[in-house]
Amino acid sequence: MTATASFNPKAFRDALSTFTTGVTIITTRGTEGEPIGITANSFNSVSLNPPLVLWSLAKSAFSLSAFSSNKHWNVHVLSVEQEALSGRFASRGEDKFAGIELDRGINDIPLLHNCTARFQCRTAFMYEGGDHVIFVGEVLGFDKSELPPLAFQSGQYALAARKPREGVRLSNAQSHPPECSYTEDLLGYLAGRAHYQLVAYLRTLLQNHRLDEHAFFVLSVLSIQDRLTLDQINHFVAYTGREVTMAMMLFLEKQRYVAIEMDGEDQRFVLTADGREVSLEHVAVAKAVEQDITEKLGAGDTQALKILLKRLIHATDPGLPDLWQAEPQTSDAY
Amino acid sequence: MTATASFNPKAFRDALSTFTTGVTIITTRGTEGEPIGITANSFNSVSLNPPLVLWSLAKSAFSLSAFSSNKHWNVHVLSVEQEALSGRFASRGEDKFAGIELDRGINDIPLLHNCTARFQCRTAFMYEGGDHVIFVGEVLGFDKSELPPLAFQSGQYALAARKPREGVRLSNAQSHPPECSYTEDLLGYLAGRAHYQLVAYLRTLLQNHRLDEHAFFVLSVLSIQDRLTLDQINHFVAYTGREVTMAMMLFLEKQRYVAIEMDGEDQRFVLTADGREVSLEHVAVAKAVEQDITEKLGAGDTQALKILLKRLIHATDPGLPDLWQAEPQTSDAY
Repeated sequence: MTATASFNPKAFRDALSTFTTGVTIITTRGTEGEPIGITANSFNSVSLNPPLVLWSLAKSAFSLSAFSSNKHWNVHVLSVEQEALSGRFASRGEDKFAGIELDRGINDIPLLHNCTARFQCRTAFMYEGGDHVIFVGEVLGFDKSELPPLAFQSGQYALAARKPREGVRLSNAQSHPPECSYTEDLLGYLAGRAHYQLVAYLRTLLQNHRLDEHAFFVLSVLSIQDRLTLDQINHFVAYTGREVTMAMMLFLEKQRYVAIEMDGEDQRFVLTADGREVSLEHVAVAKAVEQDITEKLGAGDTQALKILLKRLIHATDPGLPDLWQAEPQTSDAY
Repeated sequence: MTATASFNPKAFRDALSTFTTGVTIITTRGTEGEPIGITANSFNSVSLNPPLVLWSLAKSAFSLSAFSSNKHWNVHVLSVEQEALSGRFASRGEDKFAGIELDRGINDIPLLHNCTARFQCRTAFMYEGGDHVIFVGEVLGFDKSELPPLAFQSGQYALAARKPREGVRLSNAQSHPPECSYTEDLLGYLAGRAHYQLVAYLRTLLQNHRLDEHAFFVLSVLSIQDRLTLDQINHFVAYTGREVTMAMMLFLEKQRYVAIEMDGEDQRFVLTADGREVSLEHVAVAKAVEQDITEKLGAGDTQALKILLKRLIHATDPGLPDLWQAEPQTSDAY
C-alpha cells in the first residue's frame, strides 16, 4: 500500500469499487406519470427507527427532476437472475420498462418482480453531496423473497459466497506439520474429495447395475451424442485419463445398455432404451444429491460454486471437445 | 413476495441485510488523543468531484462524540483476512487497538495495515438520519492493495465470487435437448471435470514415476501419517471408492517408494526418502497449477472456491477419518 498524493480519477474509482455492494433499481414516476428507473449501487440502510434508507443520484442524471419532484420511489434489491435488468436500467435507453411486468406500489410507483427485496419509500431528506444528491427515504413498506441477491465488486457482477463465522476447516488438527505440504487447503485435494464424495452417492446404484463410474460417463456421453464410434467416445471421456476399451463397450452391450450398429467399416454404439433408463436414473440421483447440497449451502452459494467451478474448468481446459455441441467435430457421418 | 403491512423490526433488518456490502473500520482520535475505531458496513461512495464518501453512525454510539468533534477520520475497506479485526471493532471492548500496528495518517488519525483500500477523510457534512447521523467526508488521500475484500450479506461474512458479465458456459451449444438431463450445470459433472482436469497436470509426472492417481493418494497419505497398516491406508483412501490392494503396496515397495516394517503380526508401510521426494514433487506441481489458477481467477475468487468446496465436502461427508489429526483413530500402536 502506498499513499496516493495526487488524485487520479480512475485510481479513486478503482479504490472505491473494492467496497462490495448489492445492486438496486430505483423507480418512480415522472410528471406525466411515465415510469422512471435507474440502477444504483449507492444504496444503504441508515436508521431502523424511524426506518430510513439512502442512495445518491448524479446531479447530471436525466431522472433527477423526476426523483426531486415525486417524493415516492421504490428500491429493488436485485436477485442474481436480474443481471440483464441491471444493465438495462443502467443505460440511457428510452423504453427501459418495455415488456416488463409491474406491480403498482404505493402512489402507483412501479414495483418490479423477482427481486430479492423491495422497499417502498417517501423522501425524508435530500442532501447536498458534491456531484450527487443524497436521497434519504422513509420506508413505508417492504417485502423480501428467498432469491439470492446480486452483488457488485470492482466493476463486476458477483455472488456473495458466504463464509461461516468460524471459518471452514475439514481437519480438527491444530496445525499441520511444517514439512507437510499436502494440506486440506490444496485446491486439487478439495476438488478430488468433492468429486469422490459426490460419486459415492451413485456407487450403490452403479453396483446394482454392474457399472462403474467410468461406464456411467460413457452412458452419459451416449445419452447426449448417440451413435458414436469408440474413438469418438474416447474423445469425450479422455479428460478422465482412462481409456474406454472395446472390452468395456462389449460388456455394456452384453448388459443390453448399448447396441452396436455397423456404419460401413465402423462400429457405432447406440444407447438402448435400457441404457437410457439407467443413465436417467443415475442423473436423477445426482440431481437429488445436488438438491440436498443446495438446501445446505443455500441457492446463492451453490450457484457461486458452479460459476467458480466453470471458471476453474475454463482456466485448466486442455481443449476438450464440446459434448453438448450438436455436431461432434470428429464425425463425418451425420 | 408478499407486502408487509406492519413493521416487524427483525423482518425489516432481514430485508435490509440482503443488500450485500463490504466491511469497513472507521478510525479517529478522541479528545484525549486516544484512538477510536468502529466497524461499519454503511459506507458508500457519493461523489467523484469533489471526492466524497459517506457512512452513518448510531446516535447511541459511544464514539459519536469523538467523530462529531474530530473532523478527521479514516475508512478502511477490510480484506478477507481481517474478519477477526472486524469482530473486534464491532464489539464494545476498551482496548480495540491493543497490539495492532498502526500508521499515522493525516492529522495523526490511525491507519490500519493489510486493508484492501483506505480513505483518509475530513467531515464535509453531518446530516440527520433518524437514529443515526450520516457523515459525509471529503477524501483527502487514499490507497489500495491487491488483497481481496471482505463482504457481508444477510448477517454473515462472505467473499464476492465474481461472475463474468456474459456468464460462464462450458458448451457453445445454443440449447440442450429437453430430454437430456445430463447438462453442464450438473454439480457432479462440474466437480468431476474440475478434478480430472487438475489431475491431468500430474499425469505426465505420475507416468514418469510409474504411478497412477491412486498411488499418488497412498503416498500423500503416508506423507502425513506414516507407518500405517493396509487397513489404515484404506481407511483414509476409501472415499475414492477404490480399494488399495496388497499388490499395489508391494509394487510401491518394489519401486522403493515405501518400505515394510513388521509390528508384531502387522505389516506397516513407511514412506522411503524416495517416496517422500516423489510425493513432494507431485504436490509441488499441484501447487504450481493452483498458483496459475489463482492468477486467472483472482485470489479472492480462488479463496471463495476453496471455502465453497469445503462446505460441499462437509455437506456430503459420509464421516471420513481426519487425515491431519495427530493420532489416527484406528491405530493402537502409536
